[in-house]
Amino acid sequence: MHHPKVQINDGFWNDYIELVRGTVIPYQWEALNDRIEDAEPSYSIRNFRIAAGLEEGEFGGWIFQDSDLYKWLEAVAYSLRRRPDPALERIADEAIDLIGQAQRDDGYLNTYFTIQEPGRAWTNLYEAHELYCAGHLFEAAAAYCEATGKRKLIDIACRFADLIDGLFGTKPGQMRAYCGHPEVELALVKLHAATGEERYLKLSQFFIDERGSQPSYYNEEWERRGRKNIWSQGAPNLEVYQSHLPVREQPVAVGHAVRAVYLYTAMADLARLNGDVGLREACERLWANTTGKQMYITGGIGATHLGEAFTFDHDLPNDTVYAETCASIGLIFWARRMLQLEAKSEYADVMERALYNNVLGSMAKDGKHFFYVNPLEVWPEASVKNPDRHHVKPVRQKWFGCSCCPPNVARLIGSLDDYIYDVSEDSRSVRVHLFIGSEISFETQGRKVALTQRSALPWDGKVEFDVSLPACPEGAEVAFELALRIPNRFNGERPMLHVNGEPLDYRVDRGYALVDRAWREGDQVSWLLPIQAALVAANPLIRADAGKAAIQRGPLVYCVEEADNGTPLASLSLAEAPRLSERQTSELLGGCVVVEGDGFVTDVAGWEEGLPYRPFSKQKKAVRIKAVPYYLWGNREPGEMNVWLRHS
Amino acid sequence: MHHPKVQINDGFWNDYIELVRGTVIPYQWEALNDRIEDAEPSYSIRNFRIAAGLEEGEFGGWIFQDSDLYKWLEAVAYSLRRRPDPALERIADEAIDLIGQAQRDDGYLNTYFTIQEPGRAWTNLYEAHELYCAGHLFEAAAAYCEATGKRKLIDIACRFADLIDGLFGTKPGQMRAYCGHPEVELALVKLHAATGEERYLKLSQFFIDERGSQPSYYNEEWERRGRKNIWSQGAPNLEVYQSHLPVREQPVAVGHAVRAVYLYTAMADLARLNGDVGLREACERLWANTTGKQMYITGGIGATHLGEAFTFDHDLPNDTVYAETCASIGLIFWARRMLQLEAKSEYADVMERALYNNVLGSMAKDGKHFFYVNPLEVWPEASVKNPDRHHVKPVRQKWFGCSCCPPNVARLIGSLDDYIYDVSEDSRSVRVHLFIGSEISFETQGRKVALTQRSALPWDGKVEFDVSLPACPEGAEVAFELALRIPNRFNGERPMLHVNGEPLDYRVDRGYALVDRAWREGDQVSWLLPIQAALVAANPLIRADAGKAAIQRGPLVYCVEEADNGTPLASLSLAEAPRLSERQTSELLGGCVVVEGDGFVTDVAGWEEGLPYRPFSKQKKAVRIKAVPYYLWGNREPGEMNVWLRHS
Repeated sequence: MHHPKVQINDGFWNDYIELVRGTVIPYQWEALNDRIEDAEPSYSIRNFRIAAGLEEGEFGGWIFQDSDLYKWLEAVAYSLRRRPDPALERIADEAIDLIGQAQRDDGYLNTYFTIQEPGRAWTNLYEAHELYCAGHLFEAAAAYCEATGKRKLIDIACRFADLIDGLFGTKPGQMRAYCGHPEVELALVKLHAATGEERYLKLSQFFIDERGSQPSYYNEEWERRGRKNIWSQGAPNLEVYQSHLPVREQPVAVGHAVRAVYLYTAMADLARLNGDVGLREACERLWANTTGKQMYITGGIGATHLGEAFTFDHDLPNDTVYAETCASIGLIFWARRMLQLEAKSEYADVMERALYNNVLGSMAKDGKHFFYVNPLEVWPEASVKNPDRHHVKPVRQKWFGCSCCPPNVARLIGSLDDYIYDVSEDSRSVRVHLFIGSEISFETQGRKVALTQRSALPWDGKVEFDVSLPACPEGAEVAFELALRIPNRFNGERPMLHVNGEPLDYRVDRGYALVDRAWREGDQVSWLLPIQAALVAANPLIRADAGKAAIQRGPLVYCVEEADNGTPLASLSLAEAPRLSERQTSELLGGCVVVEGDGFVTDVAGWEEGLPYRPFSKQKKAVRIKAVPYYLWGNREPGEMNVWLRHS
Repeated sequence: MHHPKVQINDGFWNDYIELVRGTVIPYQWEALNDRIEDAEPSYSIRNFRIAAGLEEGEFGGWIFQDSDLYKWLEAVAYSLRRRPDPALERIADEAIDLIGQAQRDDGYLNTYFTIQEPGRAWTNLYEAHELYCAGHLFEAAAAYCEATGKRKLIDIACRFADLIDGLFGTKPGQMRAYCGHPEVELALVKLHAATGEERYLKLSQFFIDERGSQPSYYNEEWERRGRKNIWSQGAPNLEVYQSHLPVREQPVAVGHAVRAVYLYTAMADLARLNGDVGLREACERLWANTTGKQMYITGGIGATHLGEAFTFDHDLPNDTVYAETCASIGLIFWARRMLQLEAKSEYADVMERALYNNVLGSMAKDGKHFFYVNPLEVWPEASVKNPDRHHVKPVRQKWFGCSCCPPNVARLIGSLDDYIYDVSEDSRSVRVHLFIGSEISFETQGRKVALTQRSALPWDGKVEFDVSLPACPEGAEVAFELALRIPNRFNGERPMLHVNGEPLDYRVDRGYALVDRAWREGDQVSWLLPIQAALVAANPLIRADAGKAAIQRGPLVYCVEEADNGTPLASLSLAEAPRLSERQTSELLGGCVVVEGDGFVTDVAGWEEGLPYRPFSKQKKAVRIKAVPYYLWGNREPGEMNVWLRHS
């Protein structure tokens, strides 16, 4: 896979990228230093200071707290890659120095075990997240090295990776074990890419291959620990950790959703890098299950807060949902790797769905408040008074004690450049997965090519590309294939393609429109995506959505909110033919397109106050229902929210 | 209140009463002795044997395990009251001897503290259920004394009650405390009725008055215990125990549902016996809230399994529901007392609703399998694979480790005689609350009156009464008022009344038809209740039932089952006018009336197997939906079940 240079310049995304740079990264640095008022403390920096011997004290926060700093550094790296910022880089360098001071001489690096249980490293692989934290270190190191050219963090990472490589493996005396929370596997692939060190790729492969072998290492380890756990009760539940079966034999997605998709991401990497057919088939099987039977329309995954986990096929409750932000981010990681395995538009469809809905909705427009859980149905009073729904928050929170999600959002948005294009190995084809304004430059047949994409998404479907051949003599031609994704957006129309103003029929390959021609400087491609709002139905096996419809417009799923439609929202239903209309507004939620449709509302006024049940009679009056983009929900007074609407 | 003699003789209920006598009571005796194969052991008898010094060992089961034996004895008492059974009475007497042997010399009786924590009695009133167990002893004792005339158990009870009366109260050195699980309050009222001892009534009143006073006894106790709890974490959650406010000030039903209704039952008793207006107003306020805003159509209460508790107004999820069997039984206890406070038909309506649906449905037709949780929507796979629904069982269980419900069902059905009639203090009026075939005899104006009720319920609405004046000379007349409840059953028709074949217009008083006349031997009253199936709507504030309808026929709520309608049941919807029809069948579920109606089913066949979402299009075909009585659900192959049906 050829690595092109890409830089986003997009009317919609620039704001978010700037928000991450100007607000999220500085705010999270404050959070890591426990300087946010009224927010749960992070303890991250403090833990490193204690481990480095610079401060006295107990370890604070979750056992995997180190990863928050690493994820923040990774986000910083992407920000510096895009735009230098010496002040920020100085802060990051100091944090890296601190990390170096907390590293033991043998390369070991984990503040929890260094501070709290010095002699007990590697004794609880299924719960203690040591390799998980190592993985986030490796990802940060690879990104920071790429962005700044500085090697200090990657040297720290490699020393730790070398230690791990010596400890784990199939040789005598090595541990045939793997981490309860997959992450190091995908990180080792990145560390390999950054360093060229083959051992790291092999170590990743070892972890993948060893996973789920029987008898389970986790059971043996649990016995050795005297059957003691940190959180769970009893013997390890192997499904939670995706270690119930060898990964190649796992039929469906189970267990903790973030762990699952991090694992599948590494599997897809290795399937591609090693041409591993068995692994690829497993990825495709798990992909079909995850996105075909266990994914919310918002791109959320994980149907229960208990274990933050998948449940089973077609079980997608909208109210007791989990749909953790990190899980959707992991799904995007995985989708990206699947696209690299095979350029099929369905992978990019899911990537886009999760990005524009579940992930984008997790962050408030101020960049300082986040959802961990991303529900499709909210009744604020139930979130407070029904303990089955305590995990569902109607308002984004400042910071979480377990704050995996905010820095994950920051590093994803900061690296969005990497999700838009693929240039084929032979450089003869460039595929456009996402329609985000940006510039890409690559070389093909010894010629430099620059493509400029302009996109009016998500509000309008107009996308344009300008071809530039910067180093070519005038009139020169360069032949390559431009492959444009045809999004699956339920409104049934095919996008229109024009080249230099002329309509062009196109061939479709696995969901991409192919334009294979000799290009000249100044060539223009126009790609008009149908964007009008459409009603979406869920598979009838998804009981929670039976008799309901959702509204989607372009990549955006819509929802209704109490602020626009009153309460209870459950009283609303769509008319048989709701005549959806669209209206651009600058006044609402910082500017968006509102979708309205005909519907009905049950007349609550006719009900006696304390009467629970009475003879059935239709009592509904016509209303115009107003829907807003899901990603903008919860930015006004706390109120009810629904994605799925009854369709009468 | 005059206590008439009543004996049920009813085509429908005889079977259940016989089931309790012939099967449930013997089966539960086996269970109490840990002789049921594959069922969780009870440890009840064993605990008493250990406490009595007849056996060695540790206490087994829950801390309130003693109550299971007491509840069983109470059920035995009702059975013996109805029909002598020397063999059963011998077993009961032996159990009573054992209880006596387990009682300490000072009257204290609780096998948990006697065996396990001898010095720690009365140190954890909010969790340890000592007074709760005492209450069940008192109830059993009162019933056994009434049924058999034997005083051994009531003497044991009084000795314990006297000890408690000395320990608790407002005098110096007494504990100003009360039990975390209300029960002793209502039981002391019964013990007072059985013995005439005023102190017991006063003690009950003390517990009621003291409850919720601040600072909370529970917090002080918790501090004294070094902030240690048995189950919960942190300081006592006072709402769970209905001790957050003095009972007279509690605005809405909160906390553990069984505790709540046991408390309200005692409050209603005391309001009546003491003419306590403040208590009566509190009862009426809590009744309006409980039954008007927090009750399922099946008469179930308690919307969450976490804390087995009420949540808040109109929060009645059908799938994550709790609706514990005991809570509905407690609701029936409470409704019975409210009827005694004031003869309003709404109390009897709720009593009937809970009895014929939630409670009756909790027991399998074999009398050996029980539901603890009574859901209104079941997806068996979700009960296994979604931990949010693990508490919902699609199949009745043999016995529970926490087995409060089965013996509670037995004692309720065994004492159903007591729920049908009230004769006024002056004996001039007899009110019929429930239409269950039975004989009642009472005296009025020095004359003996016998009424025989024949009822075809729940399958047919025909009810008849024969008047007999057994000791009167021929031609004599006795004037009294017969008040017949007009059930609120959603089908809008008024029952038809005939006396000796002549139609009679009637006056209505708070939901009762009044027939005030001079009666003669052989007079006949016919009371024809409209019974045809009707569609019921829920208050639009009950989000879970929005856009749905339930079917009710007579007292029976109906449901659809997978066995009759296929899967997924969520694909079904009722037609605008479903043309409900009714069909008596002897073949299904031991004989019942099936209700059928026009509806639609979404055509699943048209969906691609792994496709989760697609453009909305109506794809439904007409079907005839088949509904069966809710109380009979889950008696075939495990499958889906729904009470509320989408109404298109």
